[in-house]
Amino acid sequence: MAMTGVLRPGHAQLRVLNLEDGVRHYRDIMGLTEMTRDAQGRVYLKCREEVDHHSIILREADSAGLDFIGFKVLDEATLERLERDLQAYGVETSRLPAGEMLETGTRVRFKVPSGHQFELYAQKTQVGNGCGTLNPTPWNPAATHGMAPLRFDHALLYGPNLAEVHKLFVEVLGFNLVERVLNPEGTANLIVFLSCSIKSHDIAFAEYPEPGKLHHCSFLMESWEDVLRAGDIMSMHKVPVDIGPTRHGVTRGRTIYAWDPSGNRFETFKEDRQPYPDQEPLTWSFEALGEGGGLDYIQRKLHETFLTVLT
Amino acid sequence: MAMTGVLRPGHAQLRVLNLEDGVRHYRDIMGLTEMTRDAQGRVYLKCREEVDHHSIILREADSAGLDFIGFKVLDEATLERLERDLQAYGVETSRLPAGEMLETGTRVRFKVPSGHQFELYAQKTQVGNGCGTLNPTPWNPAATHGMAPLRFDHALLYGPNLAEVHKLFVEVLGFNLVERVLNPEGTANLIVFLSCSIKSHDIAFAEYPEPGKLHHCSFLMESWEDVLRAGDIMSMHKVPVDIGPTRHGVTRGRTIYAWDPSGNRFETFKEDRQPYPDQEPLTWSFEALGEGGGLDYIQRKLHETFLTVLT
Amino acid sequence: MAMTGVLRPGHAQLRVLNLEDGVRHYRDIMGLTEMTRDAQGRVYLKCREEVDHHSIILREADSAGLDFIGFKVLDEATLERLERDLQAYGVETSRLPAGEMLETGTRVRFKVPSGHQFELYAQKTQVGNGCGTLNPTPWNPAATHGMAPLRFDHALLYGPNLAEVHKLFVEVLGFNLVERVLNPEGTANLIVFLSCSIKSHDIAFAEYPEPGKLHHCSFLMESWEDVLRAGDIMSMHKVPVDIGPTRHGVTRGRTIYAWDPSGNRFETFKEDRQPYPDQEPLTWSFEALGEGGGLDYIQRKLHETFLTVLT
Amino acid sequence: MAMTGVLRPGHAQLRVLNLEDGVRHYRDIMGLTEMTRDAQGRVYLKCREEVDHHSIILREADSAGLDFIGFKVLDEATLERLERDLQAYGVETSRLPAGEMLETGTRVRFKVPSGHQFELYAQKTQVGNGCGTLNPTPWNPAATHGMAPLRFDHALLYGPNLAEVHKLFVEVLGFNLVERVLNPEGTANLIVFLSCSIKSHDIAFAEYPEPGKLHHCSFLMESWEDVLRAGDIMSMHKVPVDIGPTRHGVTRGRTIYAWDPSGNRFETFKEDRQPYPDQEPLTWSFEALGEGGGLDYIQRKLHETFLTVLT
Repeated sequence: MAMTGVLRPGHAQLRVLNLEDGVRHYRDIMGLTEMTRDAQGRVYLKCREEVDHHSIILREADSAGLDFIGFKVLDEATLERLERDLQAYGVETSRLPAGEMLETGTRVRFKVPSGHQFELYAQKTQVGNGCGTLNPTPWNPAATHGMAPLRFDHALLYGPNLAEVHKLFVEVLGFNLVERVLNPEGTANLIVFLSCSIKSHDIAFAEYPEPGKLHHCSFLMESWEDVLRAGDIMSMHKVPVDIGPTRHGVTRGRTIYAWDPSGNRFETFKEDRQPYPDQEPLTWSFEALGEGGGLDYIQRKLHETFLTVLT
Repeated sequence: MAMTGVLRPGHAQLRVLNLEDGVRHYRDIMGLTEMTRDAQGRVYLKCREEVDHHSIILREADSAGLDFIGFKVLDEATLERLERDLQAYGVETSRLPAGEMLETGTRVRFKVPSGHQFELYAQKTQVGNGCGTLNPTPWNPAATHGMAPLRFDHALLYGPNLAEVHKLFVEVLGFNLVERVLNPEGTANLIVFLSCSIKSHDIAFAEYPEPGKLHHCSFLMESWEDVLRAGDIMSMHKVPVDIGPTRHGVTRGRTIYAWDPSGNRFETFKEDRQPYPDQEPLTWSFEALGEGGGLDYIQRKLHETFLTVLT
Repeated sequence: MAMTGVLRPGHAQLRVLNLEDGVRHYRDIMGLTEMTRDAQGRVYLKCREEVDHHSIILREADSAGLDFIGFKVLDEATLERLERDLQAYGVETSRLPAGEMLETGTRVRFKVPSGHQFELYAQKTQVGNGCGTLNPTPWNPAATHGMAPLRFDHALLYGPNLAEVHKLFVEVLGFNLVERVLNPEGTANLIVFLSCSIKSHDIAFAEYPEPGKLHHCSFLMESWEDVLRAGDIMSMHKVPVDIGPTRHGVTRGRTIYAWDPSGNRFETFKEDRQPYPDQEPLTWSFEALGEGGGLDYIQRKLHETFLTVLT
Repeated sequence: MAMTGVLRPGHAQLRVLNLEDGVRHYRDIMGLTEMTRDAQGRVYLKCREEVDHHSIILREADSAGLDFIGFKVLDEATLERLERDLQAYGVETSRLPAGEMLETGTRVRFKVPSGHQFELYAQKTQVGNGCGTLNPTPWNPAATHGMAPLRFDHALLYGPNLAEVHKLFVEVLGFNLVERVLNPEGTANLIVFLSCSIKSHDIAFAEYPEPGKLHHCSFLMESWEDVLRAGDIMSMHKVPVDIGPTRHGVTRGRTIYAWDPSGNRFETFKEDRQPYPDQEPLTWSFEALGEGGGLDYIQRKLHETFLTVLT
């Protein structure tokens, strides 16, 4: 098989300080579709090109941040194999029963040394993107509203023990390193961009003393035009913007960083690279993250929020 | 591992009636870079975002068409495994020694029931895209000329025994079916779009009585703007255009089909889908290929050349 | 004054065979806003960036086509001057009272030798584009639906006596010739593109034996992305498409031609030229209209509908 | 006539501290074409879509800044009329003979109360854009290099006596006010955007105590894609960037501000508005220039350089 093991980040559960404010942001301003709510009060949303039932789950809580990210794996056999592999590697795993998350099968939950919770799952109801599977339309006008992201694309997470997390994702979960930023001393990685496909990252981690922190969840846009359009919509709704529109040097993506009403950073992102695992990783010196345009290729500066503002 | 087995179509060897006319087309008009020529007189070219040494090889011959397509596989172990799997499946294979194609390792050659030659290889010199791997630039101005395609993306091939070819690519080589067009009777597939990644196709085949025919080689463009710009350049150089610019319903790609000086069709193509193997294939009825916009979503017609003009 | 005299085509009254089908097309599919209906049953619509009350008026009739086009002029003094100038030139004029067309001042009506009715007016209620005039938003999400054209841009009209019409528009109304297509013999103009601004045309005329015919009304799109998006929407609604998406050689515009439910051709159009009146007109030979890419720069062919299908 | 009087800003003469550094910037990095040099050592350049011989003139001097801006007027009669009108209005004028600026006719020079030198001229050699005037190509590949701006579009100038300058441009030169920013007290205009066409500005002025200052010269880009591409090229060449890429709220343009090697600010700019003189001007409060997104619609902040860094 060519695409095997872990397929993609399939969902992220975000903590928001006020549920209805969060729903207004992700549904009405960003343009995700609200799919359902569960008995815990969690709200499930999906992006317009996603075929699975949901990708973003909002949970009201006293502090903002990320509860967990779930990776869709190819099938049940893969799920069982990866569960065994994690355990063999020394990672403690637990199972959440099918249905604990609505429309979703059994999930294998584990914590990585950066303090983040992940889960693997093989099954989620496929509701389609509204275009049909017989003689489909190219896109679904009814689902195209707000900023209209295509997909939940990736997340960047901050926490300790980056080298261990990196090793686990490569050796157990089959990700490969696409790009990396070195620490100021040049002695170790500060940020790693890891892919399980030909995207420039399906997940990224940065070294940080406090565990379990979220830097941003990223949403894939259709074009650079749509990145600006998303920025216009942010401005119309007074969504606070952090950086952009600009090009990232790292990943070459085109981007805006902004914050949801709870302070969770999100990204509207367009990329055109197709990095393959046979390709040498790209390396950025710490200085180049700022002055070299790694973060902001046009402005060539290290926006101070990038290394400090997290949830 | 998440990306395993076959990674991508890595090269295609095309027959051209006049070598220098072919070079002028692919190098000067399309904007590929001529990398080298070998003792047989073959010309090796690469696209601007490709890291490997070459992707298109031109060979002068009395008839136009495709000699073979080569797929890059993950590593030598994969190459050996797939060679054994092919043989176990009943496919005859042979080995071409490293260096027979310049800058390229051992290739495992085999013929599929549609009459097309393929090869697998694990090694090709990586010359890079000219952006460097330490603090890279986002793109390489020196390599951005002519139509400036990013990559050789896929090919569509016509020949007999589609069902057998389809089965071989899925069961042995690990591809998955992303989309398909049914025959007029609705009893079997007429065209299958097969992926070994999250592209909508890495290779496609159509049922056709004559074996080993080429419909087109496709080149990935950066944007819909660049598809039109490519069309402008075709027109400036009187490159004969077949279809487009338009949107394909199948794959949702944005496209122009045109012909090189030998009559080999090529495509300038932009797509934004990310189909995954856990997703149900999309099906098109034969009627919908034309009237349903499968071929030309805007014009909703079956251009007669599509099913008949091949090399 | 720098912009003086005639400012722009401000409205076109179209005959449609079924009013509600027409409204569905222009309002629901194209995305104009229905502003009002009058006692005659006419429906008034506007495009999203237009500040004036309306630009397209639909009237139900037994035959499709164009009733008239109205040009907005700078002010009342200009209206009176141009009325006198027309009369002095030998053109018969009449006045329609303010309010005969809702929200519109007095109109000076006249017929040109091609058999088309035109009118000049200096006053129409300015309702704005919904962005406000104090600290405005850059665009109005509430008005951005369907194909979302920015403006009614121009029309191409077919009729006899092209040279006389050309002369009248230049000498009396102050238009200038931007481009022209010669007749097959090269002895006279076949089509003239006339501007009263720095658009490549505010009105165009083609020589044709039958008077008063409409070739198309054109709507300005924001980008080439939006031209394709308009094409997608046409296809979704089975709007019959004539030509495109492609680039016109003439005007360099990017275009789709299609038909409304009554058979009136319309265009979704994006242009980036700024031709000034001090610039030499561009000339196209008749052969170049087809093979030279004047009509369809990518396909380099004269689509037969272009010279024959009119309302 | 519809386009009369002043047509457009046709040239700007810039002072640069080192001529060859300046030429490298405007010619090699921005992609203007060097047309000629004169006996004074001035370098004449043109943008790819300009038909006239040149638009930017570089002069080496001890201080950076703007020498003058020249407006092309419709014809010699207009030149004479405007000369008389300026004198009648109390503006002192002088004549520079044809040929003092190469390929350029007589220029009528005058100084406005903000301390800026302007000139009017009716004649400049038309060299064309390289596409021809008979069956032209849509764009000229040979002239499309570097950032590839289409035209010199406008300039923003800082100096005293804004109200007087505004009055002069409207009453004598026929410009109209398209947008304006009020001063902090709301008692007068701080910035006025003046147009002699349907561009959102052909010239803009800001109130500032020191006379004759240049804020920026702006260059029109073909698309938002090209604005980013220009930003990439700035970064590749370490051109210092001031603001952007972003959208201006004022004018709705998409923009990057950056500095040439002498510290003269320039803009790469894309706009899609067509403001007409019958349309009410848009007004921005001073607060809205920053927090309301007038300067930077996405970031909604007043970058401090905007009001302070000038040449």
